[in-house]
Amino acid sequence: MADNRPIAVFDSGLGGLTVVRAIRRRLATESIIYFGDTARVPYGIKSSPTVSRFAVEIVRYLARFEPKAVVVACNTASAIAMETLADRFDLPMFNVIDPGAREGARISRRGAVGLLATEATVASEAYPRAIGRLVPGARVLAQAAPLLVPLAEEGRDGDDPIVRLAIRDYLDKLRAQNGRLAGLLLGCTHYPLFRDAIAAEAGADIEVVDSADATATMLAGELPAAGLAAGADGPGELHCLVSDNPQRFGRVGSRFLGEPIEEVTYVGPDEFFAVATAHERVK
Amino acid sequence: MADNRPIAVFDSGLGGLTVVRAIRRRLATESIIYFGDTARVPYGIKSSPTVSRFAVEIVRYLARFEPKAVVVACNTASAIAMETLADRFDLPMFNVIDPGAREGARISRRGAVGLLATEATVASEAYPRAIGRLVPGARVLAQAAPLLVPLAEEGRDGDDPIVRLAIRDYLDKLRAQNGRLAGLLLGCTHYPLFRDAIAAEAGADIEVVDSADATATMLAGELPAAGLAAGADGPGELHCLVSDNPQRFGRVGSRFLGEPIEEVTYVGPDEFFAVATAHERVK
Repeated sequence: MADNRPIAVFDSGLGGLTVVRAIRRRLATESIIYFGDTARVPYGIKSSPTVSRFAVEIVRYLARFEPKAVVVACNTASAIAMETLADRFDLPMFNVIDPGAREGARISRRGAVGLLATEATVASEAYPRAIGRLVPGARVLAQAAPLLVPLAEEGRDGDDPIVRLAIRDYLDKLRAQNGRLAGLLLGCTHYPLFRDAIAAEAGADIEVVDSADATATMLAGELPAAGLAAGADGPGELHCLVSDNPQRFGRVGSRFLGEPIEEVTYVGPDEFFAVATAHERVK
Repeated sequence: MADNRPIAVFDSGLGGLTVVRAIRRRLATESIIYFGDTARVPYGIKSSPTVSRFAVEIVRYLARFEPKAVVVACNTASAIAMETLADRFDLPMFNVIDPGAREGARISRRGAVGLLATEATVASEAYPRAIGRLVPGARVLAQAAPLLVPLAEEGRDGDDPIVRLAIRDYLDKLRAQNGRLAGLLLGCTHYPLFRDAIAAEAGADIEVVDSADATATMLAGELPAAGLAAGADGPGELHCLVSDNPQRFGRVGSRFLGEPIEEVTYVGPDEFFAVATAHERVK
């Protein structure tokens, strides 16, 4: 039985488009409805109750599209809001931390795992906790690498000297915690844009995995197992919704998606909040 | 007649604290109530209607403290929301663009003025327009320098090699527009933290002015002229309010303020919106 309902994917902004790109590469027939909360981006410097509230509002809003599953494509919301979301909504929920942690756990059997992520994701300790559940005693060394987000949004590529210097600076700080790393986990959806540069600076003996790819890999296993895979009839559709500034999203986001974004729909606060706060519990 | 009511200062986040620092240095007896909209920071990538709505909500909220004047210490809101605010509120309103533009106009009589600001402030063309009103035909060359914001918030100082490389990169792009600059205007409240480094990279023959200092200078002239200056009895108080994450504001903000921040009050959405949206018009 094919299930052609869309997968709902959301992020605080446009970073989650690297997750959409990874899903579309691996699961080409899946349709996706994406919501970027560009009016309230970034989540990484906001408190836990605020981020949880934002996540609940967004899933309430996305429920109107009758998705078959929700992907929280935002590391901050994945670290903070999953329990609240699971408690409130009767929908299969995926996040970007567990898949990355699974890869991290695999790497940790060979040595220490380096984690590059935003300030908030590092502070949440979500990755070390998730990896530790899979491999107790696993060694995870974390380094916040916040500059990589604006560097990616500025349109700089991996060859840019500032990008290279920032990557070297963060890797130096990571290495200062421990002489040897077995692998490096990119725990922010913006970082796949610099994956090659990070791998080059890290050196050939360090395996680099990113949470966007890892999430697509996990979905490719989980959706068929749950009877939720789309049929094979043609490429899946992608609709992008944003809470602000659709022009910038289309322009900058195309680099994150790896293909042109045809149309971006603006969802104003009246429409968003009318739906998002209409019900105390959707379940 | 002394007027000891506070000056209300607001910004999308903590950048406006450089304006508070400049005001406190120059007008030590003035009390200040500061609001940082850290739940919705940054404004620079948001649309004009959204930024105007945020600014109106904040001034509605701050009106409860009966301020004698409002300083919009956010370049984005200064570029976008002043007319809306003047229309809605019966309070003397200052912004950070007009004072900087006045300095820019002075410099423009000697040659081209370089402007470093955020993406949104550059796109708004608020500085060239304001300078052009004072000196028709003035030449203003603008360059967005968005990396300087996260570099400042990461706690890097002007000697950091990434900061230096970013400054050189932006100055090179500015120089590529024109061989010679008479001066450089720092049109973002974060940039004063790198003022010395920017001046060093720009060279001794380029005058550097920042909008925080320029705003304090303007207030020092305007408040007494309007009969609004505080009395000389002791140092003015400073109260900081934020819409999210008071801990981070206190920690990172102290570097922007140049003195420890004793206490930061969190204003939750229920309190904020109850006041901020209670009246369609406050005037």
